[in-house]
Formats: sequence, structure tokens, C-alpha cells
Amino acid sequence: MINRYSRTQLSEIWSEKTRYEKWFLVEVEYLRALEEEGIAEKGSADIIAESVALNPSRINEIEETTRHDVIAFLTHIEEQVPSASRFLHFGLTSSDVLDTGLALQVREASTAIDKDLADLLEVLRTLALANKDVPMIGRTHGIHAEPVTAGLFFAHYYDEFRRHRERFNGAAEEMRAGKLSGAVGTYAYGSPEREAKVLKRLGLEPAAVTTQIIHRERHANYLNVIALIGATVEKLSLNIRHHQRTEVSEMFEPFGRGQKGSSAMPHKRNPVLSENLCGLARLLRSYAMTGLENVALWHERDISHSSAERIVFPDATILLDFMLARLDSMLKGLAIKPEKMRENLERYGGVIFSEGVLSLLIRKGLKRQEAYRIVQRNALKAIETGGDFAKLLMEDDDAGKFVSPEEINETIDAGHSLRNIDAIFKRIFG
Amino acid sequence: MINRYSRTQLSEIWSEKTRYEKWFLVEVEYLRALEEEGIAEKGSADIIAESVALNPSRINEIEETTRHDVIAFLTHIEEQVPSASRFLHFGLTSSDVLDTGLALQVREASTAIDKDLADLLEVLRTLALANKDVPMIGRTHGIHAEPVTAGLFFAHYYDEFRRHRERFNGAAEEMRAGKLSGAVGTYAYGSPEREAKVLKRLGLEPAAVTTQIIHRERHANYLNVIALIGATVEKLSLNIRHHQRTEVSEMFEPFGRGQKGSSAMPHKRNPVLSENLCGLARLLRSYAMTGLENVALWHERDISHSSAERIVFPDATILLDFMLARLDSMLKGLAIKPEKMRENLERYGGVIFSEGVLSLLIRKGLKRQEAYRIVQRNALKAIETGGDFAKLLMEDDDAGKFVSPEEINETIDAGHSLRNIDAIFKRIFG
Amino acid sequence: MINRYSRTQLSEIWSEKTRYEKWFLVEVEYLRALEEEGIAEKGSADIIAESVALNPSRINEIEETTRHDVIAFLTHIEEQVPSASRFLHFGLTSSDVLDTGLALQVREASTAIDKDLADLLEVLRTLALANKDVPMIGRTHGIHAEPVTAGLFFAHYYDEFRRHRERFNGAAEEMRAGKLSGAVGTYAYGSPEREAKVLKRLGLEPAAVTTQIIHRERHANYLNVIALIGATVEKLSLNIRHHQRTEVSEMFEPFGRGQKGSSAMPHKRNPVLSENLCGLARLLRSYAMTGLENVALWHERDISHSSAERIVFPDATILLDFMLARLDSMLKGLAIKPEKMRENLERYGGVIFSEGVLSLLIRKGLKRQEAYRIVQRNALKAIETGGDFAKLLMEDDDAGKFVSPEEINETIDAGHSLRNIDAIFKRIFG
Amino acid sequence: MINRYSRTQLSEIWSEKTRYEKWFLVEVEYLRALEEEGIAEKGSADIIAESVALNPSRINEIEETTRHDVIAFLTHIEEQVPSASRFLHFGLTSSDVLDTGLALQVREASTAIDKDLADLLEVLRTLALANKDVPMIGRTHGIHAEPVTAGLFFAHYYDEFRRHRERFNGAAEEMRAGKLSGAVGTYAYGSPEREAKVLKRLGLEPAAVTTQIIHRERHANYLNVIALIGATVEKLSLNIRHHQRTEVSEMFEPFGRGQKGSSAMPHKRNPVLSENLCGLARLLRSYAMTGLENVALWHERDISHSSAERIVFPDATILLDFMLARLDSMLKGLAIKPEKMRENLERYGGVIFSEGVLSLLIRKGLKRQEAYRIVQRNALKAIETGGDFAKLLMEDDDAGKFVSPEEINETIDAGHSLRNIDAIFKRIFG
Repeated sequence: MINRYSRTQLSEIWSEKTRYEKWFLVEVEYLRALEEEGIAEKGSADIIAESVALNPSRINEIEETTRHDVIAFLTHIEEQVPSASRFLHFGLTSSDVLDTGLALQVREASTAIDKDLADLLEVLRTLALANKDVPMIGRTHGIHAEPVTAGLFFAHYYDEFRRHRERFNGAAEEMRAGKLSGAVGTYAYGSPEREAKVLKRLGLEPAAVTTQIIHRERHANYLNVIALIGATVEKLSLNIRHHQRTEVSEMFEPFGRGQKGSSAMPHKRNPVLSENLCGLARLLRSYAMTGLENVALWHERDISHSSAERIVFPDATILLDFMLARLDSMLKGLAIKPEKMRENLERYGGVIFSEGVLSLLIRKGLKRQEAYRIVQRNALKAIETGGDFAKLLMEDDDAGKFVSPEEINETIDAGHSLRNIDAIFKRIFG
Repeated sequence: MINRYSRTQLSEIWSEKTRYEKWFLVEVEYLRALEEEGIAEKGSADIIAESVALNPSRINEIEETTRHDVIAFLTHIEEQVPSASRFLHFGLTSSDVLDTGLALQVREASTAIDKDLADLLEVLRTLALANKDVPMIGRTHGIHAEPVTAGLFFAHYYDEFRRHRERFNGAAEEMRAGKLSGAVGTYAYGSPEREAKVLKRLGLEPAAVTTQIIHRERHANYLNVIALIGATVEKLSLNIRHHQRTEVSEMFEPFGRGQKGSSAMPHKRNPVLSENLCGLARLLRSYAMTGLENVALWHERDISHSSAERIVFPDATILLDFMLARLDSMLKGLAIKPEKMRENLERYGGVIFSEGVLSLLIRKGLKRQEAYRIVQRNALKAIETGGDFAKLLMEDDDAGKFVSPEEINETIDAGHSLRNIDAIFKRIFG
Repeated sequence: MINRYSRTQLSEIWSEKTRYEKWFLVEVEYLRALEEEGIAEKGSADIIAESVALNPSRINEIEETTRHDVIAFLTHIEEQVPSASRFLHFGLTSSDVLDTGLALQVREASTAIDKDLADLLEVLRTLALANKDVPMIGRTHGIHAEPVTAGLFFAHYYDEFRRHRERFNGAAEEMRAGKLSGAVGTYAYGSPEREAKVLKRLGLEPAAVTTQIIHRERHANYLNVIALIGATVEKLSLNIRHHQRTEVSEMFEPFGRGQKGSSAMPHKRNPVLSENLCGLARLLRSYAMTGLENVALWHERDISHSSAERIVFPDATILLDFMLARLDSMLKGLAIKPEKMRENLERYGGVIFSEGVLSLLIRKGLKRQEAYRIVQRNALKAIETGGDFAKLLMEDDDAGKFVSPEEINETIDAGHSLRNIDAIFKRIFG
Repeated sequence: MINRYSRTQLSEIWSEKTRYEKWFLVEVEYLRALEEEGIAEKGSADIIAESVALNPSRINEIEETTRHDVIAFLTHIEEQVPSASRFLHFGLTSSDVLDTGLALQVREASTAIDKDLADLLEVLRTLALANKDVPMIGRTHGIHAEPVTAGLFFAHYYDEFRRHRERFNGAAEEMRAGKLSGAVGTYAYGSPEREAKVLKRLGLEPAAVTTQIIHRERHANYLNVIALIGATVEKLSLNIRHHQRTEVSEMFEPFGRGQKGSSAMPHKRNPVLSENLCGLARLLRSYAMTGLENVALWHERDISHSSAERIVFPDATILLDFMLARLDSMLKGLAIKPEKMRENLERYGGVIFSEGVLSLLIRKGLKRQEAYRIVQRNALKAIETGGDFAKLLMEDDDAGKFVSPEEINETIDAGHSLRNIDAIFKRIFG
């Protein structure tokens, strides 16, 4: 992932250096188990752990010849401690190291992302509670519908991201699986017991059954969940953009001192963070597609998934971490404009309470579609002519004979529409 | 979905008829709650439930004018029972009916798919146990690696589909959520209590917070899991194709009496079922993409997801049901050829035990990469010349001085390689 | 594709009936060529063409046994005219018929879609010219930028769809290829000459080289172009939705007498057609993905593409035809509101001409970033406070000493901004 | 893109350095035009061109404050040459520079990729011609079908990549478009004439009509074509893998001295290059999806496409270049095994000529399905029992009375099946 969209911690998790360190950890712990079984000489693991200095460029140099990264890595260690490394990798296949190492990297990335999600939930909770009773027009199809509150807007996302966090941790838990089952998963030169012991020390679970590799459906699931979280980031960002558009002007992204919106137009203040997040969400979706195509491998494995994973695992996790952090800081600096919300809410007079009038007329004895026609014709007229909905209704012969002005005015009341907000908040925040 | 790839039960779940029936159920139960609250007249719900005959073509006819499907549906009922339906839909918005109805349809589809998965697991278990000890060459990169067993092949899929079943039921459970929260999710003309009561009677849970609709990230998750299951169907099918290819000939799809493989070539017996399943898996992937794009809607909802869902929900579930059933019956009729497996296993003499010789040489004191070079040069020579690997090794000066012919022959033993199969089966099947 | 999103002509092209008719056409013309070469008896082709009645349900019945559609089709003919059909399909493989038949269906679908595109271009041209000089605020990032015209909005799409039409016809032309090269594309029992003759009569070109099938990269390309056109339909629809949103209210989709926007809220008038088109565009994208995955087949072909194509070719073309027609009729009924456009354009006074003031200050000798800071601070203040931009500038010490009120007022002029509209239209419409 | 899958030339095209250089070029040439129009002082462009040293890290530093990359870039220049840069960017918007700069980068990338395609075509032509007459079994569904030749295999790809090259150059030509039309594409502070002059000097065409940006459907098209080429790279690679699999052993990827196939199994020689290419093709597909989602932007543009493009344009082009080069060198070192091909071809005796026998029986007067049944039962028996197809046929009462042993033997002849290979090659290579 390009630097622009990467944060340090995640970049380091996916660096060549960390990758080799994880492999090293796996090999050393495995060798220690071999010692305990009396296969390798006592002390080999400690010698290697203490004496070997990993040098990525030397490893790459060796790979030029071997055309195999794990063998290059092993050769690099053997160059430094020839005798202690005799039983290094004994009974293992490269994928034991690769998949177990990957699980260790993913675990770290997952911990960071879970932290991001926790932070985001906190911001959303704060915004939801602080704006619980700020009325805002609800919009369906982009058209004014009925009142909601600004806090409710954020409460939705709190609820949705809470579900995402559960899904994510479920998928991350599935990825906390290693394998040390050898070339085709049969422990031909190893044993399930040795695997269990080593993985436990590494903080991983053994995958119940493997081929040369851990089945890639776990990886695809993990990438799917990342794409899914991305889709909600996109939804929230998309709606911030809507709230910031000139004609709406209800919420504004932070705009720093010295910030400039446009090279041509000094008056511009654009929701660039949200737009950025919408674009990045597309990438997360695309990585999920690759993950799904990586599942169907040949026989005990082919290596077609490997090249794609070298790119999509770093890219997807780095990007999600970046996106969550950006969203978090954007929300923290978000300017919310209650007065503008009220202005928009009241823009078309009472028509947004047309459902109240409809209900009133039904209660008064009209049939639904009959009542509907009366309300609709007056509402559309009010919108088109800018007229007063209540007045038009009273002047309408069909409506006027059923309801009084007082009754109509009682329906035109945001307070009534919002009386259940507290109950909804209780459901979400307890 | 076209008939060719549909089974009756699923097609009916997604028929126009069922769709309207689910809406009807929601409206009637809701009306009953209104009765209980004293809003609607007592008995209205029963009158409607008993007197109304749903006629899809009449509804479509009305929709020509209203350009709104739920209103057409309501009008259709009102035409039949004008007075009983006065409070029908009172306080509801269309999406209350649509999303709750959809949840009911999805629940039925999910039950059917769960049954498919249970059946498939049973077939896989049977195949795994029956072939537990049938040796077969394991292949990585499409190249002979080390022995596995035919039963192990199926055990993998048992394990993977078991995980899928859990994921699927988790996603289905999330979809068992309805909403009756009105136009923008605020219960402006309804109440959380009424919603809770009605949904409980329908066997659904209320979504904690909604806009006009239930958040589409649940739907995307459900479609993702379907795509993920499809990817494993694809993997299994892909590998059946591999096992059936002429040069391998280890497994064969059922081939019925009177079946013809090719219009031109009467000798053909093709793995057409597996190929078919591979193709259909691509479609499941594509529907997942659409699901992910459906998440980010405007404000309290826009209706862009609706057209896509009308297609992908039926198509994805009908297709998955069809695929699982086809896979099931294909596996039941699968012909497994142990003798051909043995022939392939032994094709290259002992070279597939090169790891055993490598381990032996290391135990004898050689350094890993040194031992590797010796084994590699003899193994590649054996493959290229068709020579005897053990013999070549003994004639190799570097190897010959470390190991005896007896020691080499001991390493060339599939039994040793497969000694942990039982332990793996125990992990999976208990 | 479901009826809701299908038009008759396209549905018929993809009906089982048409499919068999195309196969029939291919077989009969091929048989005629065999007659001319003296292989089949003279008159066979005519006998078949005249006597055979295709009955899809009988064909399906036979397929139950043969498990092969083309053989079932051939058997169905042989049942009716046993002797005349002796040389039917002689030297052909099923895919000769399938791929050539598909090419004939695609050609018809392409002709219909090209007609849709031509119609759409005509509507766009009309809208562009009729609204060429209607000023409207241009928006970047959803924020008011500088003036454009309503006609220019449509001119963009004219230009873009014109490119699409070229791309589409290019892709359609590639699909106008048949093959009659036999089981593995070698004309083992046929000849290139016979193929050339028959295809010419069918109005197709021979694919230069084939395996059992025509390479699927042509098909993927065709589906890609369809997805690409869908993306522009989506863009146009998305922007109609933007223009219709309550706060903007510049354009309105047609809204029929008796149409109802919402079952709950009689005041709603929603851009449902545009929303619908946005959703359907997602499906076109997903079909393209399937097309791309269908390219990489095994050896001389595997049949995994076939199941997917049975769905995506009809679905993609039917949907695109439906979408273009819906877009066309929506645009024809589009209500455009010049007065509302002007109101929005003038909403923030002169700030939208901030670039003009910036340019003025640079011309007066200020450095760009210096001038920028002056203009930016006054523009943002005008927006936040609702103040008069020109007035604020004059009161600004830094600006005031460089420019006069007259000079500022001259820059605040939509006419100047739009002076090149005619030149742009000339480029597009000549 | 990670270094592992990048080549120098393409990486440099997409470096920050090159990006800024292209912007610089655009700004300087534009300034020169302003000089020629008498707006900017004579000589400014030359002063800037000669004096300014671009320092990416300083630009990034400024961007920390401005939160706008182009403004940071401009400020960086103004810091160095304050007076000469007064009219720099005068009348331009950032996207004028960004999109025109991008077009220049894409043009270079396209030239490199076109060269890759030309090289690949040359290798394919050589392989096709050299192996034109090497018989190989053709396989459909992975099952032996009828003979082809090894050269024909490569000829297919030659033909397909030739089409790709045309498509690619078409899409690249569309991308050779710049824009200097200002903030909303109206030339409000510029002119079409100035744009035409500057773009001509840069070797680009003006886009006929633009908003703030060039329409992204061109970009999506370019990425689609890249994905499409990737799909054919995948097909070729997939089939090399098939030909190399142990049981087939007809073609082998190059395997260098010192190369190691597996860390566990010294006997392995795996088709890792082809597998790698199959994985990378998945990524190209996913980038195309992102490209399609980037088309539908808001109004005169939103910037959501930008973040995604920063990643997918470099990644897609760098990857395609890498893939084509890897494919090229892999094909150059490909080992082709005619003797193994012949062995496989003859594995099942004459059954692969079952179509010949079918044709013979039809000529002898049998009806097609009758003849089919006779041939099928003998062919399947020959395959299952390993029996001699010709002998079985002669012993079959139904067949034996129609044909003589000589006639059967004449049909069992690869030479006859391959008699049209030259004609096919003539079509392709002239």
C-alpha cells in the first residue's frame, strides 16, 4: 500500500522484516520442540535465537538462485550457524512456516483493527448521545420524509459497527490458526502432538485438517468482513458528503487553518476526507473478490493464491486501519449545525407530516386510498406552489369536512414524531 | 433464475405468490395488534385473513397506475374488503412490509439451505470414512508430492463445510430480523412495543435500530457467506475434475445409461456436473459484489438496492440450493478407483519419499542444504530418466557413504507417511 | 431475468424457442453445404427445414436421458425426419452449433441495443440543445463551484454515450463470429471452406482459430462494455437523483397521474426510476466479473463457462436494453426547472466567482498564494455569515487597495463564465 | 505495487518524482501559452523550467498544511521563483494538471506495455511455427478428445493476444486525452484555443467536453482491457500448469540451476511462474471492478475516484507489465516434450478417433444416433478395460456388418485429423 494511505504500525506488521521475524519465531520454537523430543541437539534453538541476525537483502540475494523464499531464508540462517541449524525445519514444509507466520501477522493486524473499531464506537456513541435530541429532517430517496434526530443518525452507525466488530473478531479468531503438518498435511515427518505444543507457545490453534496449507476459505472470509466494514465506512462517509453539500449544509468535515479546498476556487470547502473514504471502500471490495477466487486451489494446494495474498492481505488491512483512523478523526472534528437542520426541516412547512394527516383522516372514517388521494393532492400542491399545507387542507372540500384546523395543527409536530427516540437509544446503548 | 438451475422449493419461496403472502401475513398480524390496542375494529384482521384472495395479476395491473408495488397490493385488498381494511397498514411504511416479508422469505430459504448443508456433510462423512485408508498421491502445484488418502480428501471438505454451515446459520440468524418502525425508523405513528409483539408472532426479532429499512450490511453479509460456500463447492468440483481427467482417472462422476458426453465424439465421458458447478460459483461471487455495493445508501434510505435485490436474493439462494443438491447427488454417485490411485502413486518409484531420504541424511549428520542437493540431483535424475531412485542414491558417492540400502528402503513406505491419518480423522469426526 | 426488468424483444431473443431456432438454422445451412459437396443427399436440408416442428418440451424430455442438450435437439429432429437427417451434424461438434447459435442471438440483441443507444443519443442531443443556455451552478465535491448550463450537463452524456456506442458496436462486431471447426477446432471431419460458406450465409465471420469453442475473451469484452455503459447510465441517474433532491429541486423525473411515492407519506415524489437504474448498473458490473472469470478454460475447452453464460448473456443484454429504454423515457419526461437553477446559482451571492477575483488580484500584481489567502478568507466569511462577498472584499484592507468595486463586480458575471459554451457545443454537435 | 512484482521502468513512471515532473511540464507549457497571449511576462516559463528543482519531500511538507497536493506543488515552485510564477496555474484548476499529468504517465506506461505485447507475440509466433506439426492430444473437459498440435496451442494465444493488442492500443489512445478547461470544464478563465495549443505540444488530444475532470469511463475502459489481457495470461498459464502436471508432463517451465522446488521435498519441480501469473490475474480483475465503480461521480465531479486511482492505475499497469515480461521469459525457456505428447496421444489406442468411426458408419447408411450408440459402447468398453477399440468394433455384431477392418484402421489416423493445420496457420500468420 502506498504511504499516503498507510499508518506506521500496520506497515511494520507487513514489512519484510516482520515477515522474516515471524518465520524465525516459528522455526525456533519448532526446533525447541525437536530438542525436547531428543531429535535436535539440546541448545540449538537458543543458539540460533541468540546468534542469528536476519538480513532481508541477503535472503533476497540467495533467493535469486533458489527461486524459493523459505529455502533462501533457511540458507541464510545456516550460513550463520551451520551446526546448530542441522535440524532446523526438520519435518516441516515451507507452508508450515508461511501460513503460521501469516497467522501471526494477521493476529497483530487484527488487534490493531479491533482497537480502531473500539475507538470508532466510542466516537459514535459520543456523537449519538450529544445530538440525541437535535431534530433533523429524515430523507428517503433524497427527498424530505419525516423528522429524525442528528443523534439517531450516529446511533445507526454505532449499532452497525458493533455488529461489524463482532464479525471481525469472529473472522480474526478463525485466522488465529497455524499448521505444522508437513508437505501434504499428513504429519508424515512430524506429529500432531508436536504441532499442538509449538502452536500453543505461539498463541495459535492448530487447524483441524490441512493440506499443504490452511484452507483459504478462512482468508476469504476475513477479507469479506473487511470489505463489509468498508461498505459501512462508505455509507457513513457518503452521508457526511450529503450533509455537507451546499444546499444542505448540516454537517461539515473539519477544515484546518491553512487548508485550501481548490487551486482555482478559494471559496471551496470540500468534504475531501469522506470522498477519499468512499474511494478506498471500493478497493476493499475488490480485495474481497480476489480472496474468493483464491479458495479453489488444485489438489493439496497450488500456489496461485500466494502472489495475490502478498498484495491483498497487507493492502486490505493497512487500508482498513487507515480508513477507520481517518473516519475517527474526521468525526471528532465534525461540525454539526442544528440551526441549519431546523431550517431544512421547516423548509416545506407541514407537508412532512402528511402521514399524520393521512392517519387522522383514516381515524375520522375515510378509507386509506381515499384519504391518501386527498392528502397527496394538497401536499404536492403545497410543494409546487410553496403554499401552506395546513391551509390548503382546510380549503380542500373533501378534507375540510372531516377535520378541524386544530386537529391538523396537532399532527404537524416534530415532537410527536420523535417521542420514541429515547426508546431506540435505550435499545442500543442500554 | 432460469429453470435449469432451480429447484421447486426455492423457486416457490421466491415466487410472486409467496412474496405477496408474506406481505399479507405481516399486514394481517400488524392489524391484529392494532385491534388489540383498540385502534382498528375488532375482527378486521380475521375478516381480511379469511376473505381476501390474492391475485398477483390484479396487483400488477393496479401497479401500472400507482407505480408503487405495496400500494397496489394494499389497494387490491381494499377492493375486496373496503371497510375491514381501513386501518390496514396504519402507521406502517412500505418497507416495513417489504423488509419483514423479505426476512420471512430468507428464513425459509435458509432453512432449506441448511438442510442441504446437513445432507452434504453426511455424504462427505460417509465418503471420508469409507476411503480413510485408500492411499492416493498427494499433489502440490499439480506435481506429485507425498501420499495422502482418498478419505482424507473428503475429510477436508467435511471440515470446511462444517465451518460454512456455522457461518451460514450465523448470517441467516442476522437476517431473521424484521422492522415495523415506520417511514424513517422512528415509530412516528407506531411503537416499539407493537413492533415487538407482531414480530414475535412472525418468529422474527426486531432490528435494534432502523432507518426506513433494515441496514443492508446484514444482507451483504448473507450474500458474502453464500459466495464463500460457493467457492468451496468450486474447489471440490475443480478437484473432482482433476481426478477425472484422462491421465489421472482416479474418480469419476456418475454417468447414466443413455447419457452422451459429446455430439461428435462418442468416447467422451466428461465431468460436466463439476464443470457446471465451477461456473455457477462465479455467479455467486458476482452477487456478493452487488450485495456489497448495496450497503451505502443515501440518508434514511434510497431505493437503489431494491432492483438489485429482486434479482440477487432469489438468484443466489436458488443457485446455492441447486448447487448443493447437485454436488450431493454427484458425490453419491462418484466412482472411486483405488487401483488407479495406487498406480499413479507408484508411477515414479520412490522419489515421492525424497523428504524421508532428506531427513535420513540429516539425521546421519549432513547439513540440510548439503543433504538437499544430494537428494535433489538423484530425484530429478530418477524422474527424467525413469530410473530407480533408491538405486541412484546408493550409486551416488555422497549419499552412499552415509546410508545403507536398507535404510533407504525403510523411508520409501507410504504406511509410515500415513500413520497419522487416524489422529486427523479423530480431530474431525471425534 | 425477471419480467419486471425485461422487454419483449430481448426476452424473445433469449427464449428457449429462439435458441433452438438458431441451432436449427445452423444445422440446416450446414447440411445444405454437405449436399453441395455431395456428401448428404440432395434435398435433405429442405425436407428438414420444411417438415420439422421444434418442440422445446420434447427436447427437454430427451435431455433427461442424454444429459446433453444438443444431442437431445438432434434426436428430436431425427425422430421427425429419420432419413433426411442422416448427415445432420456430420463433422460438427455441439459447440459449433452452440457458439454459432449464440453469435446469432447476440447479433440480434446487439442490434436492439444499438437502436436503444441511438434513441438515447437523440434525446440527449435534444435536451442539450434545448437547455444550452440555461445557467445552473456547477458543483464539485457536492459544493457550489462555478456556473455551467443545464444543456452542458446533457451534452456530456451525449459525448460519453457516443463513445459507448462505438465501443459497443466494436465489441458486437467481434461477437459476430461463428465456428464450424469441429471437436477441437481442427476441421478434422470438416473444412475451413465449408465453414466459410455456411457462416457467410448466416451473416457471420469465421473466427480465425478456435479450440472446441470460440475464445471467451470476446465474450468477456462484450460484457465489459455492457458494464461500462451501465456505469454511465448509473452516473446520469445518480445525478438526476441529486438534481431532484429536495434541497436542490432542479430536475424532476416524470410522475404520472395516480402515481404514489410512498405508502406512508402522501407528499413524496421520489426519483425512483433513477434509483432503480443505479441498482441495476451494479448487476451489469457483476456480470462482467463473471465474464472475465470465464476466459481461462482448460486445454481445448472445459464447459464451466456454459452455465454462467446461460445466465449472464441473457441477463446482461436484457437488462441493458431495459435500462436504456427506461432512461430514454425518463429523460423524455424530465421536468427541468430553470428558475430553481437560477435561485440555487445565486444562493451565495458572488462567492462562486472567487476564481475571477483571484485572477483579478494576480493581474493586479499579487502573488498567487497571497491573493488566494485574501480571497479565501473573504469567501469563507461570506458563506458562513451569509454576507456579501463583494462588499467584504472591498472592506478587506489587503484587497481593497488593489481593486475597485467596479472591477470586482465585473468578475461576478455568469455570462463571462459561460462564454465558451457555444464552442464546446460546436465540438460535440458540430 | 510491491517490488517483487514491479519492473523498474513502470515503477519509475508511477514514482512521486515522475508525477511531479509531469505536472511541472503541464504548468510550464501552459504558462508559455499565457506568455504568447501576452498575459504572463515573457520568459517566465523558461525561468521556471530552468531554475526550479522539484523536491517531493518539501511538497509533502507543505501539503501537511494545505491538505491539497497541487496547491502544495504550486507553493513549492513559488517559494523558489516568486515573481516568475505569478501567472503560473492562471485560469487552471488542479484537475487540469492532474488529469493531463495522468494522461502523460499512462501514455508512457502504455508504450511499455505495447512493447511487452509485441515481444510476447513474437515468442508465441516462434513457438507456434516451431511446433506446428508436433501432434498432441486435444482435451475437452480435461478428457482426451481428438489430436491437435503443440504449435496450434501457441497459435491460439498469438491470435488472442493480437486482438488484445488492438484493444489495448484503442483504450490507450482514448487515454491520450488531456484537459485544460478549468474548474467546471467551461474555460471560464481559459479558452479552448489555449488548451488545444498546449495539449498539442504535450502530444495529447483535448477531451471534447469535460467537467472538472475527464470522464472516468475512459479510465474504466482502460482497466477493463488490462483485466481482459490478464484473463488470457491466466488461461495460458493455467494450461502450462496442466501440461506440466506429473501425469501429463508435456511442457515444463524453465527450472534454473540451484533452483529448489520445495523446502521439504527435493524431488519437486513446480510450475511456479504460471501459478504466480494465475494469482496476479485475479488482481487485475479486481482493479477493473474499482475502475467501473469510479465512473459515477457527483455533478461536475467528486473526488472519490482519486484515492482509488492512486492505487489501481500504478498497480494495474505495473502488474500487467510484470506479468507479460514473466510470461515472455517463461515461454522462452519452456521445455516441450514431443515424445511425451505422443505417448499421451496414443494412451487409449484408437478411441480418440471415435468421431471418425461414427462418420464412417453414417456414410455406410446408419442413422446418427444408432451409429452413436454402437461407437459409444465400444469406446467406453475400450477405455474401461484397456481393450483395443478397433478390435472391439470388429467383434461388435452391429458395427462389423457395416465396416471392414481396413476402413476402421483408416479412420484411426492423426494425420487425417491434422490435415487442415496449415490452413489454420495461414489464416493467422498469413
